[in-house]
Amino acid sequence: MTSAEASPDHTSAQDIFLEAFRRHSAGVSIVTLRKADGSPTGFTATSVASLSADPPLVTFNMSTSASSWPAIASSEHLLIHILGQGNHRLAQKFSDFAEARFLGVGETDGPHGLPLLPGVPAYLVGKIIDRVEHHGAATVIVEVVDGGIGSPDQGLTYQGRSYRVARPLEA
Amino acid sequence: MTSAEASPDHTSAQDIFLEAFRRHSAGVSIVTLRKADGSPTGFTATSVASLSADPPLVTFNMSTSASSWPAIASSEHLLIHILGQGNHRLAQKFSDFAEARFLGVGETDGPHGLPLLPGVPAYLVGKIIDRVEHHGAATVIVEVVDGGIGSPDQGLTYQGRSYRVARPLEA
Repeated sequence: MTSAEASPDHTSAQDIFLEAFRRHSAGVSIVTLRKADGSPTGFTATSVASLSADPPLVTFNMSTSASSWPAIASSEHLLIHILGQGNHRLAQKFSDFAEARFLGVGETDGPHGLPLLPGVPAYLVGKIIDRVEHHGAATVIVEVVDGGIGSPDQGLTYQGRSYRVARPLEA
Repeated sequence: MTSAEASPDHTSAQDIFLEAFRRHSAGVSIVTLRKADGSPTGFTATSVASLSADPPLVTFNMSTSASSWPAIASSEHLLIHILGQGNHRLAQKFSDFAEARFLGVGETDGPHGLPLLPGVPAYLVGKIIDRVEHHGAATVIVEVVDGGIGSPDQGLTYQGRSYRVARPLEA
């Protein structure tokens, strides 16, 4: 393996950022909550990360122009669904047209009446404790207050514009 | 696949958080920078995430009791190395004893004199624009100002206490 080379002058920081993240494998989650009118809203997130274990805190990032942002900006609670490889179609659906995301999904009313998606390895009930905005994007900081565990699965990841699965390293 | 079940009363939110993150596949990166005395410091991060593409912004999370925190708290620039499966020993090394992390690694002086690790698929030069602290943990918000691209590799991920590789889904 060769050393990474410094960027040539004609490559912008943004181009390098985009190429670097095509080489980064991101875990895939779906965030759901309710809009002010009670209808469900949600999106596929590739930025969910642990912040601390005690207290249990989680972060994720999103655009403040996303369809779910008004609900995130005004709500106290949400669900974070951790996805396995068996959930890749659900992940695709929740990154397509916002209007069609819950069609045929079969969500149920979870804690606080939040839209709970079926068949996920785990979900977390989160209470939003902070929203940090920079340049039209937001980091949402969430305290985990409850949750549930489903069937185990290998983790769903996203790399190079496609869904992948986290498999053991070969010896 | 069965639906996730709500937590029984004897399972705490922290236990569910821990089990959920064992089922989450996290992309693996290494953050490096220099301490006030010029010596290199760094750590394996499983929380690096894209925040926005325009401008290119990235976040990661860490404990404020980590050995690298004083440097993060007082520095302007750092490097984020995106790791591939070929870098799993480097990832292990940078999560072990802080004193031994750079032994035999062969880092070079990168942009701003930052410690650049060899053989990674990509690295980003970041300028810290915000540090958000909650309960002894911090979210660090970074603007990508430069970087470099190395040899492509399948992304290194971490799930269930072991390093893994992001492989294509089977049909």
